[in-house]
Amino acid sequence: MEGGPAGGRALGAERRAAGLSAHVAPGGLRPAASPAPDLPASPLQRLLEGDNHEMRDQMKEAMRDPAFGFRFDLPLREERDLAYVRLRHLCQQGLWSVKDFLGDNPYRIFAAHEVAGIADGSMATKMTVQFNLFGGTVLKLGTARHHGALLDSIDRFDQVGCFALTELGYGNNAVEMETQAVYDPASDELVVHTPSTLAQKYWITNGAVHAHFAVVFARLLVGGKDHGVHGVLVRIRNDDLSIVPGVRIEDMGHKMGCNGVDNAKLWFDHVRVPRSALLDSFSQLENGGAFTSSIKRPRDRFLKVADQLLSGRICIGAMCLSGAKSALAIAVRYAHSRLTVGPKGKSDTPIFDYQLQQRALLPLIATTYGLNFGLADTKRVWAAARSDPALQPFSVLSCCGIKPLITWHLQEAATVCRERCGGQGYLSCNRLGSIIGFSHAGMTAEGDNRVLFQKVAKELLDLVRRGQFALVDVGLPKPGANMRCLDTLLGVFRSRESKRLMELGTRMATKTGAGETIFEVWMKQESDLVQATAAAFAERQCLESFVKVVQANENSGKPGMDLLRPLCELYALTRLESELGQLIIEGLLTTEHAKAIPEACRALCQALAPRSMELINAFGIPTHMCQAPIAMDWESYNVVDNQGEIVPNHTYSAAGTGFIDHKRADFPMLNQLGF
Amino acid sequence: MEGGPAGGRALGAERRAAGLSAHVAPGGLRPAASPAPDLPASPLQRLLEGDNHEMRDQMKEAMRDPAFGFRFDLPLREERDLAYVRLRHLCQQGLWSVKDFLGDNPYRIFAAHEVAGIADGSMATKMTVQFNLFGGTVLKLGTARHHGALLDSIDRFDQVGCFALTELGYGNNAVEMETQAVYDPASDELVVHTPSTLAQKYWITNGAVHAHFAVVFARLLVGGKDHGVHGVLVRIRNDDLSIVPGVRIEDMGHKMGCNGVDNAKLWFDHVRVPRSALLDSFSQLENGGAFTSSIKRPRDRFLKVADQLLSGRICIGAMCLSGAKSALAIAVRYAHSRLTVGPKGKSDTPIFDYQLQQRALLPLIATTYGLNFGLADTKRVWAAARSDPALQPFSVLSCCGIKPLITWHLQEAATVCRERCGGQGYLSCNRLGSIIGFSHAGMTAEGDNRVLFQKVAKELLDLVRRGQFALVDVGLPKPGANMRCLDTLLGVFRSRESKRLMELGTRMATKTGAGETIFEVWMKQESDLVQATAAAFAERQCLESFVKVVQANENSGKPGMDLLRPLCELYALTRLESELGQLIIEGLLTTEHAKAIPEACRALCQALAPRSMELINAFGIPTHMCQAPIAMDWESYNVVDNQGEIVPNHTYSAAGTGFIDHKRADFPMLNQLGF
Repeated sequence: MEGGPAGGRALGAERRAAGLSAHVAPGGLRPAASPAPDLPASPLQRLLEGDNHEMRDQMKEAMRDPAFGFRFDLPLREERDLAYVRLRHLCQQGLWSVKDFLGDNPYRIFAAHEVAGIADGSMATKMTVQFNLFGGTVLKLGTARHHGALLDSIDRFDQVGCFALTELGYGNNAVEMETQAVYDPASDELVVHTPSTLAQKYWITNGAVHAHFAVVFARLLVGGKDHGVHGVLVRIRNDDLSIVPGVRIEDMGHKMGCNGVDNAKLWFDHVRVPRSALLDSFSQLENGGAFTSSIKRPRDRFLKVADQLLSGRICIGAMCLSGAKSALAIAVRYAHSRLTVGPKGKSDTPIFDYQLQQRALLPLIATTYGLNFGLADTKRVWAAARSDPALQPFSVLSCCGIKPLITWHLQEAATVCRERCGGQGYLSCNRLGSIIGFSHAGMTAEGDNRVLFQKVAKELLDLVRRGQFALVDVGLPKPGANMRCLDTLLGVFRSRESKRLMELGTRMATKTGAGETIFEVWMKQESDLVQATAAAFAERQCLESFVKVVQANENSGKPGMDLLRPLCELYALTRLESELGQLIIEGLLTTEHAKAIPEACRALCQALAPRSMELINAFGIPTHMCQAPIAMDWESYNVVDNQGEIVPNHTYSAAGTGFIDHKRADFPMLNQLGF
Repeated sequence: MEGGPAGGRALGAERRAAGLSAHVAPGGLRPAASPAPDLPASPLQRLLEGDNHEMRDQMKEAMRDPAFGFRFDLPLREERDLAYVRLRHLCQQGLWSVKDFLGDNPYRIFAAHEVAGIADGSMATKMTVQFNLFGGTVLKLGTARHHGALLDSIDRFDQVGCFALTELGYGNNAVEMETQAVYDPASDELVVHTPSTLAQKYWITNGAVHAHFAVVFARLLVGGKDHGVHGVLVRIRNDDLSIVPGVRIEDMGHKMGCNGVDNAKLWFDHVRVPRSALLDSFSQLENGGAFTSSIKRPRDRFLKVADQLLSGRICIGAMCLSGAKSALAIAVRYAHSRLTVGPKGKSDTPIFDYQLQQRALLPLIATTYGLNFGLADTKRVWAAARSDPALQPFSVLSCCGIKPLITWHLQEAATVCRERCGGQGYLSCNRLGSIIGFSHAGMTAEGDNRVLFQKVAKELLDLVRRGQFALVDVGLPKPGANMRCLDTLLGVFRSRESKRLMELGTRMATKTGAGETIFEVWMKQESDLVQATAAAFAERQCLESFVKVVQANENSGKPGMDLLRPLCELYALTRLESELGQLIIEGLLTTEHAKAIPEACRALCQALAPRSMELINAFGIPTHMCQAPIAMDWESYNVVDNQGEIVPNHTYSAAGTGFIDHKRADFPMLNQLGF
């Protein structure tokens, strides 16, 4: 197979001999479509990255491997193999470790997610399950007897793991799960069992094809007593990938996106594992059945075992923010090379010149910057909270607030970019469709966004009640206030959060005082306010993070830093523009203030438009990780019969068990990509 | 192959013998997940349909053929075959004809699109190209010599056609296309030629696999003179599907959705066709090269040849509105059967009970009704304009206004439904992902939505200038006005449209009067207002249509008609809620009026929630066309190893040339589906 079937080359050769001379483009019709050759990282790129610059660069270099050439018309089995091969290749570089979660530089593992998310949502998803959910849980809930050689094998992707938490019947109420781990004192074993259809483990990433191990969450039953949900390390496949007896693995099949992820349904039919398989850092089970736990209430143990969901939200945010960067880089590059109707009716004007295009794309770029800096601070508070319990509630709030903001933003950005790229955006090779699919995975993974926002609002109210959260209501901006002033904007964001929290607290108190249940008021009457409160909190945090970055950098004299302030203004104003009416109704803005906001957004878009390439180049996406033909020389791409593919698909191993390297053949993108 | 490989059955048998007894669901945990057995059509369903009830019922019955069983992990070739087989099966029923475009009942062909869009966006897309773009163009631009036996073959799908308009370089500026049809007097032939890479025909549906004919749009060149764009009927494949010499067909490959559609890039290398291949209803070319045309300016001929794009927008709207109905039916049915956290923390409460779910889904249902009635009136004005030129501008406005509203609505509805169905919504078998993909095809097909909106605003301004369009500005609603009053709401919609049109006209006049070019002002300064004006027009039309339906039916005494008024209110209020701030800024509402709107929306959602099943049953989607497991008994679906498929995928013919019927095997959905 090496070099691909002769057909591919012959087709190209025949094309060159017979057809191309008649099909050359008229000169000068289009501006250079290719981006500039990959540039050295700008100060703006380093600012967005925030940490681990060298490791990020190394990881991107490792993605020059031909395995990272995108393929599209593939059966599931091959998509999964590709994601596996890619991730394994990266893991073998030794650039990060699951142990980073407890070390000095936990940012390394988040950086790995960010780089992974630029290129492949499926690979990034398999990565986050291997390192955060599975690896992180073994690391933190397990003890020396589990760590042994396993942690190193996790790092190298030699042993693949999955995180078997969700059950079919208990998607958003996992604490009610049914799976059991029954202690059998006779054999000193745990018997893991799935008692019903609704109890099957569902959505288990890495499960359908690749995983050797699962951390199975189950009710620990000892002598008839339910000790709550615990994690048990269960081998589900042998090293030769044969399935362990008693374990039933079913492939969940085709999905709307991320089809490189092998999601499984897992059933356990009285599967016996040694007592030592219990992850026992906080609960211990002795031979004979004596049970002790540092956590008193069985129900509270669930929160402990699900702890990796918290850093998981950072991981999802990191992956998904990179997805938004990819989508915007593709759309902006295309908009600069795509010519359409100009002043005289000829096709001579790049669509990026249209206000329509600028108004669609630049606010999304600004929001991407805002969320980037917000996520950076979320990482910091999460890292600090590892050793400072007082910070724990703020870490929870930040993680549960930023993940929804980023994943919804990704959905919006990818959708708008797709639409603004027209038909070209619809082709799989231009990647926007797969990024939309990626966004949907993010929106409901590691906690449905709306459920997380409920949690944020609830935790905030609790903090306010305990006097641990300062409310800042600075009142209306002055009449005639400059709505582009960051202090003014911060004031509006703070007042908005404060007013909503106060209002929500008041309504809860009033209505429950009048005899209604908390559940009734919270779930059936005040849902809009609950959601709006959480959004106000999360967006205020991001704006504060962004303003700090502006203040610390805008006078540094480094190139590009002059862009930070207008970007920050556009971020804040865009958030306000999306709910102007609500802000007026709540008394947070007057009509006069509101009127200035769309005008300011238009002015900022116009001002930033000439710098748009600089803004997206700072996303640090090298050509070989972008790949979308419309982000490069799409006319060359369309000279040959590309079949909608970027690399010659037919050289991929049909056996589904490995990856066969391809030659450059006649695919013109390969040279552009630098593989 | 009949009956499927034994493996499928054996797996099920083994499951029954070995596993199921241990995996029965605990009784009473879930309410009945199945929808009621398919009900007779309600008066509300008939009202939504509007016309051709019997034909719609027959077409739905024809979809009981097993070819309509959905399959997911398929290579492109098989997806295309499936779409082809399905469409051909329907065409052979003889329920509609391309000739309907000129007949008494043109609604029949739109109804066919509506029914098709419920089940399969790919099949519907192939249908609309065969019947509207290709067939309709042959019918209207062609003459007797083209019609001959071809029209009947089109109806039966015996001859498949495509519509080769768009070129790579001229997506939104097709009038500038490069393809040539050069008259050769020596042979009395036309020579069709693709002169450059950018001139290749792009996105040509039905082209990659199935089409025998293409209507090729090309500049007609006679003796060096360019007579503008004309349509030429070119055979591209012989009856045995071998490709005609000189025609180069390239498969565009994988897309983000509608992969059953075989899009092609077409190149013509001096392909010779007889002079009679020119579609000559308005331009005639005689032997020797004498050319006459009833349309004077060559550039105007383009508008004539692209005429089917207008009815095409109705077709796209019809298909896509059905997509929204499918998405909502799936999401609402699931929300009634999916249990999650209730008042006591147990998983005992259907998620539809949550205000969050109701607030997300009910406004989308109301909008679906509003667009349905708006589309019905668009069809009427289009049909009337066929014989009344004075109505033509209004037909253009309606068609160009409704298509964007519907396709954006589909995008929003499918996206929200996906998110509100959580992980289940992510599985391909639950169809929401494919509906999102379908929506994106609609948003930029038959004219990019934003470009159509520009056209609407421009045409409106022209009509206003010519005194052919009445502006109605009724001013602000009275203080304390009931914002649920339909008269009040209609007044706001009319004033909004009127104010924006006036404002846009004023700004254009002022700025161009000050020396700026129209292009500069329209494309680079007033884009937001242009778009908002078109939206105000199109939404006002829909609301007026809906109000007429309310008035004509609410007192009919038929069941369900009491739902119309609150639905209409919710439709209108939802549109206003989405841009409250803008309405206040424009002086169309006071803050007090605005404040009442979200409250009214919440009240209406609460009031309509208990009738939600009635509302979605009126969409007329029988179980065998819905298929999504989460809309049926999803617990049963998950008892067996379904591989994410609904019907046994592996019995589909791998040869890719035909369809092999499957047996019921062990797939539990087949009985539910009634295949």
